[in-house]
Amino acid sequence: MPLRSDWSSKNCSLARGLDVLGDPWTSLILREVFFGNGRFDAMKQRLGIADAVLSKRLGTLVAAGLLERRNYCDGGRTRQEYVLTAKGEDTLPILNALILWSEKYVEAPAERAHMRIIHAECGNPTSSADTCTHCGKPLTAANTSWHSLTRTPDPVPLATAPSATALSGTEIRP
Amino acid sequence: MPLRSDWSSKNCSLARGLDVLGDPWTSLILREVFFGNGRFDAMKQRLGIADAVLSKRLGTLVAAGLLERRNYCDGGRTRQEYVLTAKGEDTLPILNALILWSEKYVEAPAERAHMRIIHAECGNPTSSADTCTHCGKPLTAANTSWHSLTRTPDPVPLATAPSATALSGTEIRP
Repeated sequence: MPLRSDWSSKNCSLARGLDVLGDPWTSLILREVFFGNGRFDAMKQRLGIADAVLSKRLGTLVAAGLLERRNYCDGGRTRQEYVLTAKGEDTLPILNALILWSEKYVEAPAERAHMRIIHAECGNPTSSADTCTHCGKPLTAANTSWHSLTRTPDPVPLATAPSATALSGTEIRP
Repeated sequence: MPLRSDWSSKNCSLARGLDVLGDPWTSLILREVFFGNGRFDAMKQRLGIADAVLSKRLGTLVAAGLLERRNYCDGGRTRQEYVLTAKGEDTLPILNALILWSEKYVEAPAERAHMRIIHAECGNPTSSADTCTHCGKPLTAANTSWHSLTRTPDPVPLATAPSATALSGTEIRP
């Protein structure tokens, strides 16, 4: 666990949640996996994180059941990438709430350094962590895109937890 | 800032938000202030936190504009307590999202160790971080109660940011 002390058996559910999610790297790693960037080297490059720290946090997230490892083929070699579980996917409102608060209160270093949360079904940005403030539907990873203007020209549909069948096999991706 | 590195000028608003809110103690201190427990000794007792750590985190929250200091009279002595600003009050959806995720996924150590988020206007619990899932109205600190069953027998209406007038004077509370 990333905390100084073990909060897993605290009476407060907020403290117990922070025991799993209270490390700031954890949120950024989940961000990468939501963006579909679940391979070690690509995550490391994007995050500017030390190998040992990334390995440890990924191990913690797998042990806590938020991520799972999946095989893929890289030029003949079988390598591993990280994908969300349902438990990991359901952290989306926490990340969304942080993004919305930061967009409202924390100064951006550049005009384009903003992130928008978009309900892909109706195409509108939302100002709620878990509900489309345009059409009222609940947000899930399956119907949400993030648009980080410095990252991609278009909004990115978020990754979701793959089905159990997909996880059991080796998926070949170029 | 509580992080190893300065993320305040990152292009990603999630990283910039974590630069302010990424320390787990910060969320628990905000929890206490939302519960109306903004005095140093009472917070220290409730959190089981070292004096130096609490002082440092409170200073960071004041410097970041999430909390303000307010005078109160304690047996003839003027002392200080911490109250929310609008910027601090607006962290509520982040804490709510963490509570809801934890309630869904993290095992509680006792049957009563749960926390419910209640929209006080309609009296119903909500399963959204910022919207009442019963009546659809937006949640704010002013219309939300938290019910930590191990803490109080009844739900506690959350603290809000006091008006500028209230902050300028010395408030006498027994």
